[in-house]
Amino acid sequence: MNTNPKKIALAYSGGLDTSIIIPWLKEHYPAPIVAVIADVGQGDDYEKLRQKALRTGADEVVVAPLAEEFLTGYVWPTLKAGCVYDKTYLLGTSMARPIIAKKQVEVALATGCDAVAHGCTGKGNDQVRFELPYMALAPQLQVIAPWREWDIVSREDAIAYAEKHHVPIDQTVKKIYSRDQNLWHISHEGGALEDPAQEPPEDMWLLTRSLRDAPDTAETVTIGFERGVPVSLDGQRLSAVALLTRLNELAGRHGVGRADLVENRFVGMKSRGAYETPGGTVLVTALRELESLTVDRATAEMKEQLGHVYARLVYNGQWFTPLREALDAFTDHALARTTGEVKVKLHKGHVLTVARTSPNSLYSNALASFTMGELYDQKDAAGFIRCIGLPQKMAALLGVNRP
Amino acid sequence: MNTNPKKIALAYSGGLDTSIIIPWLKEHYPAPIVAVIADVGQGDDYEKLRQKALRTGADEVVVAPLAEEFLTGYVWPTLKAGCVYDKTYLLGTSMARPIIAKKQVEVALATGCDAVAHGCTGKGNDQVRFELPYMALAPQLQVIAPWREWDIVSREDAIAYAEKHHVPIDQTVKKIYSRDQNLWHISHEGGALEDPAQEPPEDMWLLTRSLRDAPDTAETVTIGFERGVPVSLDGQRLSAVALLTRLNELAGRHGVGRADLVENRFVGMKSRGAYETPGGTVLVTALRELESLTVDRATAEMKEQLGHVYARLVYNGQWFTPLREALDAFTDHALARTTGEVKVKLHKGHVLTVARTSPNSLYSNALASFTMGELYDQKDAAGFIRCIGLPQKMAALLGVNRP
Amino acid sequence: MNTNPKKIALAYSGGLDTSIIIPWLKEHYPAPIVAVIADVGQGDDYEKLRQKALRTGADEVVVAPLAEEFLTGYVWPTLKAGCVYDKTYLLGTSMARPIIAKKQVEVALATGCDAVAHGCTGKGNDQVRFELPYMALAPQLQVIAPWREWDIVSREDAIAYAEKHHVPIDQTVKKIYSRDQNLWHISHEGGALEDPAQEPPEDMWLLTRSLRDAPDTAETVTIGFERGVPVSLDGQRLSAVALLTRLNELAGRHGVGRADLVENRFVGMKSRGAYETPGGTVLVTALRELESLTVDRATAEMKEQLGHVYARLVYNGQWFTPLREALDAFTDHALARTTGEVKVKLHKGHVLTVARTSPNSLYSNALASFTMGELYDQKDAAGFIRCIGLPQKMAALLGVNRP
Amino acid sequence: MNTNPKKIALAYSGGLDTSIIIPWLKEHYPAPIVAVIADVGQGDDYEKLRQKALRTGADEVVVAPLAEEFLTGYVWPTLKAGCVYDKTYLLGTSMARPIIAKKQVEVALATGCDAVAHGCTGKGNDQVRFELPYMALAPQLQVIAPWREWDIVSREDAIAYAEKHHVPIDQTVKKIYSRDQNLWHISHEGGALEDPAQEPPEDMWLLTRSLRDAPDTAETVTIGFERGVPVSLDGQRLSAVALLTRLNELAGRHGVGRADLVENRFVGMKSRGAYETPGGTVLVTALRELESLTVDRATAEMKEQLGHVYARLVYNGQWFTPLREALDAFTDHALARTTGEVKVKLHKGHVLTVARTSPNSLYSNALASFTMGELYDQKDAAGFIRCIGLPQKMAALLGVNRP
Repeated sequence: MNTNPKKIALAYSGGLDTSIIIPWLKEHYPAPIVAVIADVGQGDDYEKLRQKALRTGADEVVVAPLAEEFLTGYVWPTLKAGCVYDKTYLLGTSMARPIIAKKQVEVALATGCDAVAHGCTGKGNDQVRFELPYMALAPQLQVIAPWREWDIVSREDAIAYAEKHHVPIDQTVKKIYSRDQNLWHISHEGGALEDPAQEPPEDMWLLTRSLRDAPDTAETVTIGFERGVPVSLDGQRLSAVALLTRLNELAGRHGVGRADLVENRFVGMKSRGAYETPGGTVLVTALRELESLTVDRATAEMKEQLGHVYARLVYNGQWFTPLREALDAFTDHALARTTGEVKVKLHKGHVLTVARTSPNSLYSNALASFTMGELYDQKDAAGFIRCIGLPQKMAALLGVNRP
Repeated sequence: MNTNPKKIALAYSGGLDTSIIIPWLKEHYPAPIVAVIADVGQGDDYEKLRQKALRTGADEVVVAPLAEEFLTGYVWPTLKAGCVYDKTYLLGTSMARPIIAKKQVEVALATGCDAVAHGCTGKGNDQVRFELPYMALAPQLQVIAPWREWDIVSREDAIAYAEKHHVPIDQTVKKIYSRDQNLWHISHEGGALEDPAQEPPEDMWLLTRSLRDAPDTAETVTIGFERGVPVSLDGQRLSAVALLTRLNELAGRHGVGRADLVENRFVGMKSRGAYETPGGTVLVTALRELESLTVDRATAEMKEQLGHVYARLVYNGQWFTPLREALDAFTDHALARTTGEVKVKLHKGHVLTVARTSPNSLYSNALASFTMGELYDQKDAAGFIRCIGLPQKMAALLGVNRP
Repeated sequence: MNTNPKKIALAYSGGLDTSIIIPWLKEHYPAPIVAVIADVGQGDDYEKLRQKALRTGADEVVVAPLAEEFLTGYVWPTLKAGCVYDKTYLLGTSMARPIIAKKQVEVALATGCDAVAHGCTGKGNDQVRFELPYMALAPQLQVIAPWREWDIVSREDAIAYAEKHHVPIDQTVKKIYSRDQNLWHISHEGGALEDPAQEPPEDMWLLTRSLRDAPDTAETVTIGFERGVPVSLDGQRLSAVALLTRLNELAGRHGVGRADLVENRFVGMKSRGAYETPGGTVLVTALRELESLTVDRATAEMKEQLGHVYARLVYNGQWFTPLREALDAFTDHALARTTGEVKVKLHKGHVLTVARTSPNSLYSNALASFTMGELYDQKDAAGFIRCIGLPQKMAALLGVNRP
Repeated sequence: MNTNPKKIALAYSGGLDTSIIIPWLKEHYPAPIVAVIADVGQGDDYEKLRQKALRTGADEVVVAPLAEEFLTGYVWPTLKAGCVYDKTYLLGTSMARPIIAKKQVEVALATGCDAVAHGCTGKGNDQVRFELPYMALAPQLQVIAPWREWDIVSREDAIAYAEKHHVPIDQTVKKIYSRDQNLWHISHEGGALEDPAQEPPEDMWLLTRSLRDAPDTAETVTIGFERGVPVSLDGQRLSAVALLTRLNELAGRHGVGRADLVENRFVGMKSRGAYETPGGTVLVTALRELESLTVDRATAEMKEQLGHVYARLVYNGQWFTPLREALDAFTDHALARTTGEVKVKLHKGHVLTVARTSPNSLYSNALASFTMGELYDQKDAAGFIRCIGLPQKMAALLGVNRP
């Protein structure tokens, strides 16, 4: 890894970290830089970012509009797989990294780069989520991770370096949170969060209202799904971006989608993170409720177990792997009939199910009802129980296992 | 099963179902009846129940105070195992059945019964949860399940039978919900719930206030755990019953602990249930947060997976099985260091973590912090990533798996 | 189930059990009988069976040649899924039942039957493997299981009944094994096997030579696979039936493929079975060796785990289920690159791998070799280990978990 | 890791690799060396090894007799957990590393060392299996892994270095296999094995006779187990070392216990290994057969799944982890009743079960027999099947899931 790259494609966000990387690269690797700006719905002014990149030393800039593909190709599959990491984190950052890395690799190859660089630190998950895709998609490219090379060891150092190299920053030492945003979520790390015995300050949250400020009156919305994919709101068919944008606004207003957890990073340490995923939280709940009608018990149990596996793959940056793809094949089949509508009520941070309906529902009122009917003979249950209990009965009769 | 029992021990709750069973048994099985009343914290007037049982035909009555044992021997192990069935149900009814069945068997053996009877229908889970324990603990006893034998096929039929046999009922046809309560929870089935496209009516809920009525001001409480078992509230050591009673009151006031789901019954059909588990919901959340400090990643992942298995065993009535006991051994070891305190805020139906602390915390601020330190060399991550990604890199270089 | 069927389709094998069912059905259900004879490669004289069925009372006979479809549609998917039940049983009987039941249902519907019957006892697995497919494919059909209805309780009773009704039998009381054969395997139950402390007598085995009689000289054969499916022997492309027929002969001659185990039946009891699967044993071994080249570690681990699930589904008769189909989707993807050849040596009951080759091999001699090369920097391993060990290091430094 | 150690404890085997490490350490780290020689039953002349270590530059030598503890504390737990890695490897090397590392750490701490060194390369699994225990047991110790530091890149280089530094070697360039032996097994890597399309040469195998040379006559042996632990041979109670020594001799004579596989190393690449585990193969088979009598189906299924997890932990060097210990707790409970005897026949490389007996057997001849009895009512199976099949029946009736 000591080769001198001829041209470098940098994943550029315009934040403090990637901004100072441009002058640092110029100083240490005398090669032209292509700044790759990925629009995954974070809502930045991409023209302004382009200018900033050029001004601070980038030789070329590519802005890639990826929001729709991000949702349909990365978020929906993860949603369908039922992924929730550590019971609460909806994987917003994890899902965005592979599509950004993939685009970065494509730009690198198209513009004649032989190296790729990113602005992730050596302690976090994101370096993995960038570099594993590089290795899977273009292992011949050199990887430059300045945070693992340079002497900058703190945010304060980084700001000093920026000032010294005339990199404009809107970041001040007081803006202590490290954040990552896209159309699905925003994450918060650092500052007060570094102490797990401290509550996240109310002013940290950006996309969701507090319980206090959330309206006293609930609002309902109906989400339509086709084969596990969200396709409509209140009966209106929408693009993925339009659907999630509207749902984010609605759910955020009602304080839906906050999470605060101590998680286990892939590189080995525990860390604290807070997340806001307003629309996503609604979708996860709604899809689960629809599946409760359309998926049979055995498939649901296996899907739940595989959802944990899928979540770990996504969290760990192992998106471009045969295992992830094989799990997609499982999920696609398992949800082939998961079409229908779920009506939910958003209220004071809650997503409350009002109605689940599906043309493929396996729920039978006649079967479930207390009142007995013809589909099911209660006497069957006696035989069922006696077969299920046979091993314990034998153990008891043989005097084994039980006192 | 056509033998004539000499004496029958009946699991007696005093509700409509078990009340009419006494005269029905008298009519069809001419044998003395011992009514076994289990106090698992449902808060009934047990003296009144005793009188009612005797008045309607029971020959003997045993009232068994089981609440403390129910919590320490059944609820705490399930809590420690991390059980949540179908992502939302906290298994309140499922955990109570085995202890009731066990006591019923003990009474049966002590009073010379050769048969046991229960009032569960042939469509539900509870028949399994009674009868599998019978088979494991005393397979020689005959099992009588009147609901699988008689002609009564609806609640209306049951009421008519009660009236005909002068069984006093406070149940009317309008009181349509089928309910089961203990110190951990109350369940609701039937009525409007039988349609999954209908919202539970607000007046169905009994233990938790509505979001509207829950106070605008949050309340905090600190739960102390020792080896995964809740032992104190706000620093005050309490018995299990005292602790949960107080927590139920607090959490119920803030609307915490409602669940509404379509679930998959063990006997094969989907059904709809609603549950209120106020204090339990707080404990599940708090323990999970404490574990996030004290349990390492690999153990946590395995524990999560085994928690699903444990939940299914409990849901399915397979409590007295070698597998459940072996899983307990796993959990006890996994939580041997899970001692500490979690402070939570109860507000508008939410349990929000305020602080997690443990003398055995594996969280290292120095490691987690953005600022770099000595415990961890960032360059290590490069090697880590290159080893993790080696299979995908080789696949790419060999032209396999990736286009 | 007390309805009087108008016409009955019987799964007819020509053995003792199904032979006496014809007169018994005539006696108890006065309806025409269609005998359905499935050829799954068991090698019977089907014309003779047809005559026997008609002679003993069947009104119609359908002989269905299913061997090729049995292999391609049932055996190959199970092989690809990596199924081995209880570590040794290759599921020969389990895989055959669903295709027979499916054909039986098709014949029933085509010939105007409203009932289906089979000759399995009420203690075994096969009743489940027939009836679950009936329920999945044509739940409206009445199911008749004479063994669960009649008074015949032993093989001796059955023979007496046959003699009384002039049903010709080549079965004598001394021929005590209950057997099931198809192109994949033969199973043996009963007789000396009922005692798990008794060795299977040498004369019980039918398809495989004893170790003593197997040749002293090994024989080699090369199996070609495409996407996990066996397609050729020694370079010669063959139909499924031709391939397995030849492999059975070869492997049987060398004593390959015996299994003898105590297994856990789905209906709850333990039982003893012995199996001969000569060609199948070779295929299972060969495919596993090929996968060791073509499948990456993470996918292989998951596939192994799901193989157990698949094996249980097959064993339990749950073939026509959404879960089995979703697992197929996973496997098909996981084995999309598993093309290549495996050369094995058959010798004294062993299948010894001689050579594994694949155009998609992920094995890199340069990487595996003791001699160091360029693809991998040994220093990376240091970082890898330090990240992997970080949780235990922190636990040790914090004085947690380790004494 | 650039600190200068004051004193180094070296895991010393006396082979080529560790022998040249002594002069190399002397050259690069001017500190006294304590050579730690672990006797895990590899059968070396330890006095000779001691002299060799001193002669080539070690300042102190400690010979630690660990064979009995190796079996009882490491091998038996892994045996009980049912571990087989990649379906064939019995983990002989993997289990030995942690006990050696633990002893090395103890010696290091007792003799005032501040560093530990080992002779594993940077490409293999063993470096991980040494260093993770170091990190778990004494993270303050510096780790020196010469193979990841020096310029020696091949066996030829190593031999040249040895000759130059007058280190006596019995290794020649032609002795190409890299081997590791202990009482449980011997492993072979390198040489012809590096090509997965080449068969292991017959002269590579050291502990097991070829099929050709194995006796034509079988030999039987009865293994007694208590709670899953082997305690006797043919009724004679033996220490672990005595038992395995005798079993190795017996099984080796009959050619039992060879394995040859392409495996997935923890550091990411595929490699080829061959193993001989004669006595161990007998024990694995015998214990599995005993468990088939004593363990119920549900526990057996879970144990099988957890066995894979345990095997990966052991293979990966993650012995000293909370997860491994929690899995032990599970296994200990699951096998609490696995006491009994298994008689096996060793013949031409096979371990054939002759008889399984246990006072805690759950096998009931009456239940398993074809002949019907009183313990089980066949009609129960009908109800069992109808409950199990209800979801598919409903799906079919509702027109969902099936065409």
